[in-house]
Parts: sequence; structure tokens; C-alpha cells
Amino acid sequence: GVLGSGDFARSLAIRLVCSGFKVVVGSRNPKRKASLFPPAAEVTFQAEAVKKADVIFVAIFREHYSTLCDLADVLAGKILVDVSNNTEINHHKESNAEYLASLFPACTVVKGFNVVSAWTLQSGARDGNKQVLICSNNQEAKRTVAEIAQVMGFTPVDMGCMSSACEIENIPLRLLPAWKIPIFLALGLFLCFFTYNLIRQVIHPYIREQKNKLYKIPIEVVNTTLPCVSYVMLSLVYLPGVLAACSQLYHGTKYRRFPDWLDQWLQHRKQIGLLSFFCAALHAVYSLCLPMRRSHRYLLIETAVKQAVEKKMTIWVEEEVWRMEIYISVGIIALGLLSLLAITSLPSIANSLNWREFSFIQ
Amino acid sequence: GVLGSGDFARSLAIRLVCSGFKVVVGSRNPKRKASLFPPAAEVTFQAEAVKKADVIFVAIFREHYSTLCDLADVLAGKILVDVSNNTEINHHKESNAEYLASLFPACTVVKGFNVVSAWTLQSGARDGNKQVLICSNNQEAKRTVAEIAQVMGFTPVDMGCMSSACEIENIPLRLLPAWKIPIFLALGLFLCFFTYNLIRQVIHPYIREQKNKLYKIPIEVVNTTLPCVSYVMLSLVYLPGVLAACSQLYHGTKYRRFPDWLDQWLQHRKQIGLLSFFCAALHAVYSLCLPMRRSHRYLLIETAVKQAVEKKMTIWVEEEVWRMEIYISVGIIALGLLSLLAITSLPSIANSLNWREFSFIQ
Amino acid sequence: GVLGSGDFARSLAIRLVCSGFKVVVGSRNPKRKASLFPPAAEVTFQAEAVKKADVIFVAIFREHYSTLCDLADVLAGKILVDVSNNTEINHHKESNAEYLASLFPACTVVKGFNVVSAWTLQSGARDGNKQVLICSNNQEAKRTVAEIAQVMGFTPVDMGCMSSACEIENIPLRLLPAWKIPIFLALGLFLCFFTYNLIRQVIHPYIREQKNKLYKIPIEVVNTTLPCVSYVMLSLVYLPGVLAACSQLYHGTKYRRFPDWLDQWLQHRKQIGLLSFFCAALHAVYSLCLPMRRSHRYLLIETAVKQAVEKKMTIWVEEEVWRMEIYISVGIIALGLLSLLAITSLPSIANSLNWREFSFIQ
Repeated sequence: GVLGSGDFARSLAIRLVCSGFKVVVGSRNPKRKASLFPPAAEVTFQAEAVKKADVIFVAIFREHYSTLCDLADVLAGKILVDVSNNTEINHHKESNAEYLASLFPACTVVKGFNVVSAWTLQSGARDGNKQVLICSNNQEAKRTVAEIAQVMGFTPVDMGCMSSACEIENIPLRLLPAWKIPIFLALGLFLCFFTYNLIRQVIHPYIREQKNKLYKIPIEVVNTTLPCVSYVMLSLVYLPGVLAACSQLYHGTKYRRFPDWLDQWLQHRKQIGLLSFFCAALHAVYSLCLPMRRSHRYLLIETAVKQAVEKKMTIWVEEEVWRMEIYISVGIIALGLLSLLAITSLPSIANSLNWREFSFIQ
Repeated sequence: GVLGSGDFARSLAIRLVCSGFKVVVGSRNPKRKASLFPPAAEVTFQAEAVKKADVIFVAIFREHYSTLCDLADVLAGKILVDVSNNTEINHHKESNAEYLASLFPACTVVKGFNVVSAWTLQSGARDGNKQVLICSNNQEAKRTVAEIAQVMGFTPVDMGCMSSACEIENIPLRLLPAWKIPIFLALGLFLCFFTYNLIRQVIHPYIREQKNKLYKIPIEVVNTTLPCVSYVMLSLVYLPGVLAACSQLYHGTKYRRFPDWLDQWLQHRKQIGLLSFFCAALHAVYSLCLPMRRSHRYLLIETAVKQAVEKKMTIWVEEEVWRMEIYISVGIIALGLLSLLAITSLPSIANSLNWREFSFIQ
Repeated sequence: GVLGSGDFARSLAIRLVCSGFKVVVGSRNPKRKASLFPPAAEVTFQAEAVKKADVIFVAIFREHYSTLCDLADVLAGKILVDVSNNTEINHHKESNAEYLASLFPACTVVKGFNVVSAWTLQSGARDGNKQVLICSNNQEAKRTVAEIAQVMGFTPVDMGCMSSACEIENIPLRLLPAWKIPIFLALGLFLCFFTYNLIRQVIHPYIREQKNKLYKIPIEVVNTTLPCVSYVMLSLVYLPGVLAACSQLYHGTKYRRFPDWLDQWLQHRKQIGLLSFFCAALHAVYSLCLPMRRSHRYLLIETAVKQAVEKKMTIWVEEEVWRMEIYISVGIIALGLLSLLAITSLPSIANSLNWREFSFIQ
């Protein structure tokens, strides 16, 4: 049974019919809404629909849950599946599913399907991997809903008891939570190093020698800033592991929880590492662009003209040559190694490595 | 039970034996063929095999289905699994599975396993994600076959009733259908802009000033063409969304189907966007190669020599310098952003993002 | 039931409790260890725990299996799940699971869960794809354990009978086995070509003309070596397919096994191809870095000065210009095509292609 006639209710009904279930839809205005549903689904009044079904998907907004209270008698003993989402993280004190359970104590409430969009429901989960997170206090009801999800082509994941409902409801609302701190960290580091390099390469020569080097800002100053950020971020990837080991040695046990800041830091290592790689890759592109610039061309021609006028034939400085060759060579190798690390962090590749292989590459 | 003794029948029998099923193989010449099958599988005459099995995989070509008609009595009431594929899309009027069902009305026919290759069957589905699409008019039979697929290590996906058989049979034959239109679009745009740039950079100077600039064709003309293609493609990614919104506003409802051309366009956005990124990346590589060219070197030396002979010491043009610095800087940032979009379109990463995160990155 | 109180036993108990199972933990010192387990799990003496459970996870080291012999009577008829790993590949003659089975002939032993880490158990398998390989001689027991794995959120994969236990136990210990030969091959080829190019570009000019070109070693010699390695590796990707076809034609059958060396070679094609792409990509980066070098700058200025002093105004050599333009142009196109091949070898993309699409791209 499906209660509701919105987008999600429609998509759910279509998918259930396609998966071979008998579907009955409960609506307050069945005549007007019947055309929205597939012909195989029976659209009728709410009370009648509830009577005919054992598992009922409640596809209406939290605000309208109380309108179902008239149906409390008919609903008693049925499994209610709460598929609702919120518009803000932790908007209400209790999760929607717990609120529903408190309204209908005679029903078994299961939270699920909220992480799936109406679009995925309609188009099918053919690209695999689409998980449906489920939680409930009743194991039997949870298993029933998990089986329905499986037949519909989804992978049910058991998230434990009802207290996880809040967590499940927050999932579709989260916005790259693991990236927030690393990105602000990278931006902060960039600003610091950029200011330092700006003073050193542009402002200082201007004050001391009245030389206008402002044209260096968009590329050269950025290009000297990026590797600094990349280095510091890379060191921040490997530092917390060392700190954690020290903490374990100091306390003589590995069963003691790390302090919260260290725990957070350990969990953000992958994101910090990827940003470090991103800065290194940008540095490589910026460096490769250097000889393309008009200023590079002008300086080269000016030097050549000056030398020709002075009839100075050779300017080869062996040390300078070697320094540059080695610098570029080491840079390329470092970038190649970082690329390997970045590639192995792709989910589909990381999943195919065992622990020993992963730590070998690290 | 498995009917047939080809590659697929063999691999199927091996996999079924490995997954712990009792397998009986029906062949017209059991003695000669027995050596091809694993010892645990019983190889016998077709009629005998059919009698012993409840679920029978029909691993023979559509052309030979009629040879099974003698077995119609023994087959009655059994589940037949049609695993066949065609050699051309929509080669026959009705799908193989429907044809089989029409030949044996007393059997329950299930379509499935045709998207799996003999190779995958033998090597096992250990790299996950291998889906088996199943359809049938009989829910019970479908569930039985789905369970067999699951035990064999595949993920069964319910595709609904028998009318989907045609669609399932076409899947192994499709050739990147979503890419055809975007690729022809990109090639068309490339040709147009290439002709325009060829006339502007090579033919026009030749006619007006008799200058031979043919050497510009392989790199410089291609390099000015690529960003034009990339820009137009990128705009074509975001345009249909705007058109769709306008159409919804105009009709005052979101339940009206979009016209077919708009629907097609909306579905090709990802491919158009990836081709746009591909052109942008090629443009970046071409641009980086510019200073490597012999012609760049010659022009540089010529300018220097000319200046030296005329004793003109400085040629610094501040405006030119700034234009180039800003152009390169903005180009790198644009490429970095496009790269992020391209990376999030990888299936394994797209699957781990929720809708809010996906639209934030877009 | 869980026997043991190590890291893995703890994580297993936590996960089982979270998935809604009743868990009883058997320990030799239940009082001291109880605090390590979640409150919902009952921690008691081993004999008592075994009595209460039907399925028992043996989470202790192989060396301590014999300490369980006192419990042989209570264990009789139960399902024992061997979750152990070894520290070395093929360390013992028989696998741990077979050893356990030989100690308790009255029990049904199932091998499984050893490929899952304690960390994955605790954090949940929410990122999908985590497979649990299971094998046993008893189909019924295997199915029971597979169902438990599924409820815990893992994908059970049936690996057949007990003789596979050794293979399953070796999986967490393998270290990129498919990469070993290709990497040594690439290193060998690199050394050969590097020596050749070193002699040709550095040692020969030094001996003949006493010119010091040592600065060429880090970049130029490496850069001429990489494409040679890449070419040879690429040819080694497509050669075994041709050899296999010839062998099939010669023997007139495709059911004859290939010789072992050819089989190995065929299975390493993907890795050889990726290394070929890696070398080609490095070659591209090295080439792009050439104009950034100090030596390039010095040579350019020297040429210009020489020309200016000699008042030689033009040095344009049409043939040289064209050679370079075409060389770069073809190089970029080749790299673009190789990139496409490399991208389609990512697991998540390869899984979404059918056989026809894959061979079309190849």
C-alpha cells in the first residue's frame, strides 16, 4: 500500500508494480489522482487502501502525518514505512520516523527509501550500487521491508534500531561534510603563503628598486604558492598517524579512544591528501605554462639583444643548468607518485585492493 | 538442467556445479560431449535430462528451438530459462524468449543471463557489479531464477514482464548508443569551426599577402578550433535544462511529458559535457606544446636578431603581457573546474554523492 | 556465537548486534573481557557460549585451535565459521579451515569473513562492493552463513567447496600479484633503452668530440627512453592475442588449453597496457618541460646572438618546421586515444560496458 499522491508516491507505485507487487494507493481524492498512477495499481480511498495492504509506504509530508490519525484503527498492526525527508538538518527534535511511531503506537514503523530519489525509483537501479538504508526496532518488519527493497533491485543496508532514523534522514541533506575542514584549511594556507610571496616577489622589489613587477601576480606568485600549500597538506596527511602511534605507545594500549580532534583529523586524511594532489597538479600546469607567456618571450629577446650588442657569445652556467634539470626531473617523479596515490583513492579501485596492497602503495 | 553443449552451456554448467547445484546436461550426443563438461555434471540424452530437472536453461540457438518440440510433453510445467542472444538489434519480430514461450505454452519461460558472457560465467563474478537482468510473466518462476543467479554470485535485477525480453536481448548488442549523437555533434562543430579558422588563419593571409602559413594547420588551427567546440558543447549542456524549466512554467505543470527532442537532449547532457571537457583538455595540451615547436623557436630568434641589428633594446608591451597572464590564469582555473565535473561523472564517485552534493558541484 | 576476544571478535560482535542478531561471546576470562564488548552481547565462558549458539565464529589464532578440543562434545553438530588469516602465503600445508575441520570432525566448518577487516566490520559496509568469500563442503551451512553475511550488509560470494579455503586465506596476503611481472618487464626494458640512449647521446659525443653533455641525463635521455618502453609494452599487449589465434587455428579447436606462458601473458595484458600508458603520459610531461629548462634558454640565446653578430637574418627551415608540427600533432592524438583506453579500464567504467562496446574501443 502507498499513502500519498505526490511525485515520490507515484514513482514508488510504478516501481512496485514493475517488480511484480500488487499495489493499492490510498488517496483523499482517488478519482482525480487515478490517472497519475499506472493502470495496474488500484487507487482508492485511504481507509480502504490501508485495509487491503500489510506494508504501507507513508509518502506524505511530516506536517500531514496527523491527518492519518482517523485511520489509527485500520492501521493497527500494519507495517508503516516512513520514506520522508526533511528540508534542513536536525530541523525537528525527533526524527520523522520516531514522530510517526509516536502517533501510531499500534503500528510497526520502519524507516527506509528516503535516500532514493523519485528519479532513481522510476529509472530503475540498473547502474547498481544504489543502497537503501533501513532501520527499525522490529527485526521482523525490517526484514520484510529489506526483502521488498531487494526485489525492487536495491541493496538494503541494515542500520540498526530506530535511533538511527535521525542519521538516515540527514543523509540526503549533507553537503560534502568530510570536505569542509580540508577545503578551509587549504584556502587558509593558500592565503598565508600567497601574502608572503606577494610581499617577497612584488611589493619588496617595488619599494626597494621601484620595479613594477605587478604582472607576476596572476601566474608566478600563484605558482610559487601552490607547492608550499601542497607540501604542508601532504605533511598533514601523515602527521596524525604518527601522533596516534605515539598516543598508543604512551598509554600502552590500543583500546583507548583517541581525543576527538585527533579522531577527526585521522578521518579527513584522504580529503587532505587529494587536495594536496590537486595543488601539486595545478602547480605542474602553471609551471608548464610559464614559457608560453608574453613576458617570458620579452625577457628572452631582451637578454639576447643585450648580449648581441655587447658581442658576449656565451652565457652557459653549468650549475644553473643542472639545478633546473634536477628540479624538473624530481618534480615529475613526485607528481607521478602522487597521481598513483590519487588513482588508488577512487572508490572502485580502492575496493579492489586488500589492506596489504593499500599500505604498500601508501 | 542445461540443454545444449556450446560454449555458454559449458560455462553455465561449470558455474552451477561450483555454486553447489546438481546439474544435468541434455545433449543429442551425450557420449561425445561428456568430456567437455565437469565430471560432477551428469551428461545424458535431452529427454532424460529434462525429466530430472525443474529449471532448464535452454542454451541453444533460436533457429534450433523447434528441434525441442519432440520434448514438449516432458517439458510441460517446467521453468525454461532463455539465455539466447541475437546477432542484430531487432532481427526478429518477436524476442527469442517470446518465441520460445509460443512454442511451449505449457512451460513457464523466464528471460535471463544473456547479458553475462561465457567468460564471466567461468571466471566468476568476483569483481562485483555484474548484474543479471531477468523478466517473466510468472512471478514465482522469476523469483526462482533470481535466487539461482544470486547463489551463482550475480545480482539479479527484475525487469518486469515478458514484454521487456526484447529490450534485454538488445542490451549486449548496443554500441554506446548514448554517445552517437554527441560525437557526431562534436565532429560537426569541429568541422565548421576548423573551416572558419583555416580560411581566417591560412587561406586569407595567403590570398592577401601571399604568405605561406600552411605549417599552422596541424597545431595552431586545431588549437583555436578546440576551445570553440568546447564552449558550444558546454552551453548545450546547460541550455536544455533552461528550456525544460520554461516549458514547465509555460504549461503550468511538471507532469506533462517533454517533447521527444528535448527529452533526448536532456538524457545526452552527460556525454556532451564529457566531450566538452575532452576538447578543453586537448586544447590545454596543444597550447602547452606551442613553445616546443620549431616554428616558435625560429620566430623568436628572428625577432631577436632583427632587434639586435636595429639596436632596439626594449620591446616590453605591458598590455600584451597582462593579456597573456590573465588569459592563461583563467584558462587553468576553468580547466580545473571542468576536471572536477568530469571526475564526479565517474560512476563510482557519482554513486557516492547525494542529490544536493551533485547539484552543488554542478 | 563468537569465540575469542581480540580485535576481530569485538568488531564481529558489534556488527552482529547492530544487524539484529542475538550474540553470545565465549571467553576464557569473561569478567575481564566483558567491558570490551557491546552491552547487548552476552559474554560468558566458552562452553556455555557454545551451548547457546548454532553458528559459532572461531575468532582465535590457528595456534590456539587445539585449546578448543575440550569443547569437542559441546561443539558437535554446530556450524563453525573459520575467520582466521595467515601471516604468510602458504605458511602451513593445509589451510586453517581444513585444519579446524580435521580437529572437529563432528562439526560443519565454513570458511569466510577473513577478507573483511575489523575496521570494515565496525564502520559498516556502506560504501558497497565489500564481498565476503565463503566456502564449505556443506551447502546448507554455507547458505546459513551467506544469509548472515547478507543481513550484516555484505555480499556473500560462493567459492565452492573446502578445497578453496587455501585460496581464500591467501587473498588478504597477496601483494598486487598481477603487477609483478609487468613492472619488472617495464623496468628491464627501461634499463636496456636507457643504456642505449646514454651511450648514444652522452658517452659517444664525449669520446668523439670531448663534448660534456652530462646535463642531458636526467631529462633528455629519460625522455627518449620512455616512448621506446611504451611502444614495446603496447605491442606486447596485442601480440599474445595474435599468438592465441594462431595457436587455435593451428590446432583447429578452441577447446584446447593454451600453454601456461601464453595464458599468463594473456592475463597480464591489462597491466602491461596501463604501464605503457603511464610511460606515454610521463613522456608527454617530460616533453612539455623541455622549453622550461635553463639549457634550452641558453642554447636559444646563443643561437640568436651568433646570428645577430653574423647579421644572418633568417633561419627558417620549412622541412624542420613541418616535421615538428606533425610529430607533436600525432603525439597528442596518440596520447588522447591511449587515455580513452586507460579510462575504460577503470573497474566502474569497464563494468558498465558490454563486450561489443569494449572490443569497439579496443
